[in-house]
Amino acid sequence: MFGQMMQQPLLISSLIVHAERHHGDREIVSRRVEGDIHRTTYKEVASRSRRMAKALAALGVKPGDRVATLAWNGYRHMELYFAVSGSGAVLHTVNPRLHPDQITYIADHAEDQVLFFDMTFLPLIQAIAGRTKTIRHFVAMTDRAHLPADAKVPGLLCYEDLVDAQDDRYDWPSFDENTASSLCYTSGTTGNPKGVLYSHRSTMLHTMSAALPDGLDCSAADVVLPVVPMFHVNAWGIVYVGPMTGAKLVFPGAGLDGKSLYELFEAEGVTLSAGVPTVWQGLLGYVEANGLKFSTMRRSAIGGSACPPAMIRKFLNDYGVQVIHAWGMTEMSPIGTAASFKAKHAAMGQEDRFAVMATQGRAVFGVDMKIVGEDGRDLPWDGEASGDLLVRGPWIISSYFKNEGGDPLKDGWFPTGDVAKINADGYMIITDRSKDVIKSGGEWIGSIDLENIAMAHPAVAMAACIAARHPKWDERPLLVVVKKPGAEVTREELIAFYDGKIAKWWTPDDVVFVDAIPLGATGKMQKIKLREQFKEHQLPSA
Amino acid sequence: MFGQMMQQPLLISSLIVHAERHHGDREIVSRRVEGDIHRTTYKEVASRSRRMAKALAALGVKPGDRVATLAWNGYRHMELYFAVSGSGAVLHTVNPRLHPDQITYIADHAEDQVLFFDMTFLPLIQAIAGRTKTIRHFVAMTDRAHLPADAKVPGLLCYEDLVDAQDDRYDWPSFDENTASSLCYTSGTTGNPKGVLYSHRSTMLHTMSAALPDGLDCSAADVVLPVVPMFHVNAWGIVYVGPMTGAKLVFPGAGLDGKSLYELFEAEGVTLSAGVPTVWQGLLGYVEANGLKFSTMRRSAIGGSACPPAMIRKFLNDYGVQVIHAWGMTEMSPIGTAASFKAKHAAMGQEDRFAVMATQGRAVFGVDMKIVGEDGRDLPWDGEASGDLLVRGPWIISSYFKNEGGDPLKDGWFPTGDVAKINADGYMIITDRSKDVIKSGGEWIGSIDLENIAMAHPAVAMAACIAARHPKWDERPLLVVVKKPGAEVTREELIAFYDGKIAKWWTPDDVVFVDAIPLGATGKMQKIKLREQFKEHQLPSA
Repeated sequence: MFGQMMQQPLLISSLIVHAERHHGDREIVSRRVEGDIHRTTYKEVASRSRRMAKALAALGVKPGDRVATLAWNGYRHMELYFAVSGSGAVLHTVNPRLHPDQITYIADHAEDQVLFFDMTFLPLIQAIAGRTKTIRHFVAMTDRAHLPADAKVPGLLCYEDLVDAQDDRYDWPSFDENTASSLCYTSGTTGNPKGVLYSHRSTMLHTMSAALPDGLDCSAADVVLPVVPMFHVNAWGIVYVGPMTGAKLVFPGAGLDGKSLYELFEAEGVTLSAGVPTVWQGLLGYVEANGLKFSTMRRSAIGGSACPPAMIRKFLNDYGVQVIHAWGMTEMSPIGTAASFKAKHAAMGQEDRFAVMATQGRAVFGVDMKIVGEDGRDLPWDGEASGDLLVRGPWIISSYFKNEGGDPLKDGWFPTGDVAKINADGYMIITDRSKDVIKSGGEWIGSIDLENIAMAHPAVAMAACIAARHPKWDERPLLVVVKKPGAEVTREELIAFYDGKIAKWWTPDDVVFVDAIPLGATGKMQKIKLREQFKEHQLPSA
Repeated sequence: MFGQMMQQPLLISSLIVHAERHHGDREIVSRRVEGDIHRTTYKEVASRSRRMAKALAALGVKPGDRVATLAWNGYRHMELYFAVSGSGAVLHTVNPRLHPDQITYIADHAEDQVLFFDMTFLPLIQAIAGRTKTIRHFVAMTDRAHLPADAKVPGLLCYEDLVDAQDDRYDWPSFDENTASSLCYTSGTTGNPKGVLYSHRSTMLHTMSAALPDGLDCSAADVVLPVVPMFHVNAWGIVYVGPMTGAKLVFPGAGLDGKSLYELFEAEGVTLSAGVPTVWQGLLGYVEANGLKFSTMRRSAIGGSACPPAMIRKFLNDYGVQVIHAWGMTEMSPIGTAASFKAKHAAMGQEDRFAVMATQGRAVFGVDMKIVGEDGRDLPWDGEASGDLLVRGPWIISSYFKNEGGDPLKDGWFPTGDVAKINADGYMIITDRSKDVIKSGGEWIGSIDLENIAMAHPAVAMAACIAARHPKWDERPLLVVVKKPGAEVTREELIAFYDGKIAKWWTPDDVVFVDAIPLGATGKMQKIKLREQFKEHQLPSA
């Protein structure tokens, strides 16, 4: 027997309809690549999204067609989020930090029909325009005045021309909520990037869960600045959470340096932000160096890679900002866990509370997780046992686009590739990526713990811990360190720094200093490159 | 083209599974009808729900069968919420304040197979046991020790016996999320009660939206005491919001007087509560009379009928409790709007903020609303135009159980029977029930405004404003007043009290004093009875 309630599909267009109707005058502020600060409202973004939806139809874009973007966080990119997905096409957000060869591969694999780009990326477009197979139109996300006379892209279109050519009388179509809405490629460590194809349903459920008090805790009173890019897992859903809640959105465009971000935080009264640890390092560095404070910011969601505990402390102790340590991945839309407190933590001392905040957090409602041993059997949630982390839920991948790589699931669970432990309260701690685990004498050593300790040393700007070959133990930890400008520290001092902080046998056998650690397109350390670089490294203990 | 994300139906059982896994040790506290305070946990409630699901199957309850409850808010009732709906049957919560004839009608109409009841209601069960047509088992929600030797109910079963007979090895079944989950009858003013049949999908989406920061704002740190009964629209969803968020739940049982409630609030550290204005009057009366304060309560959701502005002020000014004024109805699962602030209100003075809190609020995400004139055309959201309020959304009724009353919708919208205005910020103000509207000389007078003013008079305990016949104006307002014990006020004083507070022609033409205003089963004033009582009333102005 079925219930007798209204049947309404969960569609992304409902978000912008809701925002226009209930939060029409709420601001959307963008730092444009044109150089200025641009101000608009949900009402205006809704209207222009409808005009762009009509423009897409006029360009021959049909439901299911992929429409690509190479763009920073900004209001035009936001309009495309609703124009493309809302009209039934698939928004393919492309990471502009990828190599042109990879972008060409991805655009061809996705069979993109139209590609929208910020002017920053014109050289990139010039490099790929003659090479992609399916793109019929390239659209510069600017107005006619900012378009060079000869952009050297055949048949180039202008965003504002497309919008100007349409009126906003357009009704968002209704269709099956399982329809594909957006596509994001994730670069595996081996093989070609694989596409994750989100649906309207998965996106809408993720959005509702993400905004909950124990997630991002986002309300109409908030001013949210997503540092995390819209080309990477939909800025962790913030482009959808904004219109759902009526929060003001502030888009930083290309200005991701500490100074640009800080000025925008203060000028716009940002209360909530989200980004990867490396970006926050730049921001905190600027704020520290100039003796500044945050006037309005109260919460900062940090994920993408583990947030060093030292950064969590600094945010709270020095600036009164609560870090929401979160974990997820492209295959998870992306939010899986968030380190929100439980009631029992209220009475704890600050050190114990920091220990909770340093975990990756507990599952947001909708996500289920488990850890398993090498035999595939469930491991206990005791904070000790460490194993492969698997997840499931309505916004987690079931298979990659075009079924690349075959069936990724194990008995209905998605293997994250992370190694983790979970404590009795359900807080999860990533101890490693399964491919980064250091296996010493048959026992696992978690590289992330070792990196966090090194990062707490005042002279260390960045640290990676990788496995180095050892004749007796198979592998032993090697610490790769970038020093802070002007700071000095020796190998011996760093090794001594581990004393009492970790089991003796986990202490790195050696330290090497480098000028830079290679970062991937989403800002994560590429340890695979370090392992390649140091594969012949002779440990003094060997 | 479909997305490639996991397909998982939205099922009510997932809530208790999540709570057991992530909040297993969180407490559920109940004041039992047995007289004591009972303490359990989500883990234990989850285990006992599974045992009860097996017991139901053993009693022959099949998917789709209706299982009724006549019970207060308590942990056993909560277990039935999950045991019944989770196993695929339909939980039919019956309002015990209805007349035995109505309960018999409802049980027969629903074709209930089993009826669970709290011992308080044994006399009621004795009155209906021989009369209902389909109920095969009556189950007393107590243990064997509290069961009288001869309960005078043939074949009576005992709740704890059923639980004790089963182990908890049970996997919740998976099925279509549109499957019916629960059933709640709403007593119209004419005709027989009609059933609203919720689905797992509608319930789950409602639960997620209800917990959002601009709704109930419920997190794992909260301690929630639902005063609103579980027999009435699922305690506004709190029985589901609790396990979703990991909030501690405190159930008041039959103790709804001011003293019992206050003691439970303080003993259990309640931070959030929800109920109808009449219950809060009792609580505030007790707190005031005894010079008490609330130590932990910070938010109180008030709905069911309009909250008098004087009560909103008293809660905040005298006790530091923020009222979340909310509106909804059985046909809406029930939450439609909540009067959460927007960012723009932060800078306002307290009087302007009170004006926002006194509205019924803005639509929670998922609910769309509109007001229409007598010609059915949309009215503007200008805070002035007043018309019939219509709603739609995935947790709003499409038709009544067994299609009683035919198709209730108008062009896909559900007519609420309320008359409202909506301001430019989307805040809705109920001015009347459409059947309670006073039509004076062709113009509408909102009875609720007139009642709110009367309620602000220190001598008035309760006030209803109804239409009285008038030879010239057709109808004019008649104020019906219950005085506070020991307080005195005259007809002339009350009429003068309206001076300057409202348009002159809205002032009631007459005042009558009564000992009591009849209340319906959910605590709402039954103005239809008052209209009947005063249908021959001679207005002095006539």
